[in-house]
Amino acid sequence: MFAHPVRSLCFNRCAVGRIANFSSVAAMASNKFRLPDKYQGLEKNVWVEFIQLALENKPVNLGQGFPDFAAPDYVTGSLKDVVTGPDVLLNQYTRGFGHPRLIAALSKLYSGFVGRNINGATEIIVTVGAYEALFCSIMGHVNSGDEVIVIEPFFDCYEPMIRLAGGVPRFIPLRPKRKEGVVHASDFVLDEAELESMFNEKTKAIIVNTPHNPLGKVFTADELQTIANLCQKYNCLAIMDEVYEHMVFEGQKHIRMATLPGMWDRTITIGSAGKTFSVTGWKLGWAYGPAELIRNLQVAHQNAIYTCCTPIQDAVARAFELEMSRLSSPECYFNSISVELQTKRDFMVKFLKEAGMVPVIPEGGYFMLANWEPLAPKLLEHLKDEPDPELDYKLVKWMSKHHKLQGIPPSAFYCADHKNLGEKYIRFCFIKEDENLEKAAEILKHLKLTLDSRL
Amino acid sequence: MFAHPVRSLCFNRCAVGRIANFSSVAAMASNKFRLPDKYQGLEKNVWVEFIQLALENKPVNLGQGFPDFAAPDYVTGSLKDVVTGPDVLLNQYTRGFGHPRLIAALSKLYSGFVGRNINGATEIIVTVGAYEALFCSIMGHVNSGDEVIVIEPFFDCYEPMIRLAGGVPRFIPLRPKRKEGVVHASDFVLDEAELESMFNEKTKAIIVNTPHNPLGKVFTADELQTIANLCQKYNCLAIMDEVYEHMVFEGQKHIRMATLPGMWDRTITIGSAGKTFSVTGWKLGWAYGPAELIRNLQVAHQNAIYTCCTPIQDAVARAFELEMSRLSSPECYFNSISVELQTKRDFMVKFLKEAGMVPVIPEGGYFMLANWEPLAPKLLEHLKDEPDPELDYKLVKWMSKHHKLQGIPPSAFYCADHKNLGEKYIRFCFIKEDENLEKAAEILKHLKLTLDSRL
Repeated sequence: MFAHPVRSLCFNRCAVGRIANFSSVAAMASNKFRLPDKYQGLEKNVWVEFIQLALENKPVNLGQGFPDFAAPDYVTGSLKDVVTGPDVLLNQYTRGFGHPRLIAALSKLYSGFVGRNINGATEIIVTVGAYEALFCSIMGHVNSGDEVIVIEPFFDCYEPMIRLAGGVPRFIPLRPKRKEGVVHASDFVLDEAELESMFNEKTKAIIVNTPHNPLGKVFTADELQTIANLCQKYNCLAIMDEVYEHMVFEGQKHIRMATLPGMWDRTITIGSAGKTFSVTGWKLGWAYGPAELIRNLQVAHQNAIYTCCTPIQDAVARAFELEMSRLSSPECYFNSISVELQTKRDFMVKFLKEAGMVPVIPEGGYFMLANWEPLAPKLLEHLKDEPDPELDYKLVKWMSKHHKLQGIPPSAFYCADHKNLGEKYIRFCFIKEDENLEKAAEILKHLKLTLDSRL
Repeated sequence: MFAHPVRSLCFNRCAVGRIANFSSVAAMASNKFRLPDKYQGLEKNVWVEFIQLALENKPVNLGQGFPDFAAPDYVTGSLKDVVTGPDVLLNQYTRGFGHPRLIAALSKLYSGFVGRNINGATEIIVTVGAYEALFCSIMGHVNSGDEVIVIEPFFDCYEPMIRLAGGVPRFIPLRPKRKEGVVHASDFVLDEAELESMFNEKTKAIIVNTPHNPLGKVFTADELQTIANLCQKYNCLAIMDEVYEHMVFEGQKHIRMATLPGMWDRTITIGSAGKTFSVTGWKLGWAYGPAELIRNLQVAHQNAIYTCCTPIQDAVARAFELEMSRLSSPECYFNSISVELQTKRDFMVKFLKEAGMVPVIPEGGYFMLANWEPLAPKLLEHLKDEPDPELDYKLVKWMSKHHKLQGIPPSAFYCADHKNLGEKYIRFCFIKEDENLEKAAEILKHLKLTLDSRL
């Protein structure tokens, strides 16, 4: 078939006008089998685009949020033990809403963190990453026409999931306070009046991500209380994306919305084994909350996935069991990872400044936004051949192709009307080998020298 | 809080009328946060119910479809190698639509099986089990009001997935030919006129499961051609659930719908690593088909899950690479598993007959239906305390509780109007240790003796 001369010819001639294809069957099928209405407009995905870019250019990749170093030995060792151990049933289906050993570990862990007795059988669900927990939280609660408040910048999947569920996202940006000099993530705040104006009788939920990606903001008790008051006043859910819960830097404290007075009954909290144990490829997450709410997630889950990978669940349970025995020790990974990350953060802050950018210093998580406006006068002329409309998309693609350093364009984390708020930034991930952070520093130093020397 | 005397009292007094609860906040929340319309009626799940039953009664479990013996050493060994090996990135996120090494293996394997060059980048998607591949196939194609033809008995998730997508399932049963004596799965057939009457301009797809669960029917070339002709006449998709593709017994051949003339363009074929390598707990599956159709699955996938477990994908890729080097050898697991299963099937046929039931002899897969009508006159009086409306539900629960043998009620695989067609059967799974099949045989023998002795 590949050698068929007429088809080859036809393909070549039709290359521009592909719609008028030779195959009428395919064309007819194509029309009937088009993407259903519920997914129209939800086809684009920043990760698909930029992972492909990284596969093509093989840059120093500070784009996607995963460690490029080894996970703790005992975590991978647990999976090895599970899969080759004597209990052969650990390679077979387990309970759909969560493997019993993992549910037991999660319920013990979070009962301690939240200060109430969490029932593993009814108040926890295990999911395919925090991503599926978000899917189940949104699909399992959002009815047609419901509104969901989304704080910008936001993890990009929130918006299409809300639209898929038939809901209407309402966006409110974290805005930087006007100030000179060093910029911290905590300088990005919500305007209280603007926030209250987003709530009305159609509001089903607000999604809050703390510690925040991509800003690295750790929401304060006061900020969370303001949101909690509005959730109670307007009878709304708080969907809490807390996947970076253990990554908070010196002087900061992660506060769980579910612990605020009156909030347990209306809060779904989402966590991630991938983020917690530096094994993002394991794709295991969970949500906890009151049984009435978790039941809705279960229905969404059983009609999409039904059950998660058993050996991964058992291995994560074992990892949690170890950590729970040393929660207050500096050896506990929940503690050691923050110390390790803080050094990397400080190094990145330094080299981004040296490169002429203005970093937004994060208080948690493992991402950093850098404002590249100071370089724009010299940079923009280089980006003119990149076809994307957003400047940050142009910059990221150009840097990946021509300087072998890859970030992520933050405008992907803003709604269509607010993309301008993200364009002047680029997101870098710093949970990377020191060697790779140093390579990134070198690349940016070289870039600055090149730009400076040309003017 | 747990010791609060007024609340405790209130809880006790309200135990019967839970709706009139003390907590008005919870009640108000409960009303606003009820399950969205799209999931109404989709709450029940046969697996949740019967896995719980098995956890409670600890029976000899011939219910759920998974092996209770060890997976092949080299399969679990591959996962061990991946997770503890030198490439630490194999514990991190991989490409969303399928890990490159697995996509390469699948494309090579199925290019051979289907007789055309399958492009791994665009014509394959990797999913969280065949279950998520079904979800993506249905959600990615079914628009509001579209009809999907479902052949009964059917894997139970087809129906809620179609309804969730906004579609209308149209059910047609495989009906047994009237005959005396031994019954084979091939005796269950579709009536061609009845089948054509299900198709109309609203029909988007037909879902076909071959080898079939729970019947064990392997659809013949003629049967598939009849369905293919109707798909082409009415411009419909064939969604092929072929997860038992390698489990066919002597004298049988699995035929892929995608290989029939004109069918590639309108066929999505679904497979499963869990079924193929006896690791159902790994929850890894895939779908292949033309890029135009797979693109729709990708959009559904990226908005629910985004990416699958990396180490599991890499391990499955390695397992396929080994099997592809010995496809025609009796050592190839695709061949050896069928030989092993055929012996187990024959033993189960024998003991079900001895127990006074009439087994439907399967030609593929690892399930068997047994008609228990001959025992009904003596059995029914024992089932009267089981509250379920369907007789097979009563029987399965009673046997799990009182005789420690568990099957699955086949009426779960029929629509509401046709449940009577399944009630006279019970489904048993025979991919189980010989020791456990022997225990099941003993239990059924004892049951028959007891029933006989009482009359």
